[in-house]
Amino acid sequence: MARVVVNVALKPEILDPQGRAVQGALSRLGLSGVIDVRQGKQFIIEIDGELEGDRADLLEKLAGELLSNPVIEDFTLTVEN
Amino acid sequence: MARVVVNVALKPEILDPQGRAVQGALSRLGLSGVIDVRQGKQFIIEIDGELEGDRADLLEKLAGELLSNPVIEDFTLTVEN
Repeated sequence: MARVVVNVALKPEILDPQGRAVQGALSRLGLSGVIDVRQGKQFIIEIDGELEGDRADLLEKLAGELLSNPVIEDFTLTVEN
Repeated sequence: MARVVVNVALKPEILDPQGRAVQGALSRLGLSGVIDVRQGKQFIIEIDGELEGDRADLLEKLAGELLSNPVIEDFTLTVEN
């Protein structure tokens, strides 16, 4: 069984109001020195068998089109076979 | 500067309708053998200086109370100093 972790984050140049709100809350609750907070999504996908070849290519494609919005988001994909 | 990654995921016993929807979509779009998908949140926090002592303890506490809902979610916290 393969375990695939896809992390999706807003591109650095895109404003992240949720992250900004969390940054403000952390500071108000007493955590000093918070420079930046970005909030993203994480998908943990369990796949039957090994992930390789066409199936790996398709998942990479879908991570960029279904799981993330390529206009405003970047993704990283890690496979643990 | 320290970089802290907090991953928040629904506890395994909590139903994840977003993950289930993604699982259905991946299958419909041709990816075979998808056993399970769970969707979580990821916070990337940049902190001034090293994160240690009281500040590390406070961030650990806030990750469990502000960034995640301890009733339905688990979190992992990774510090890269």
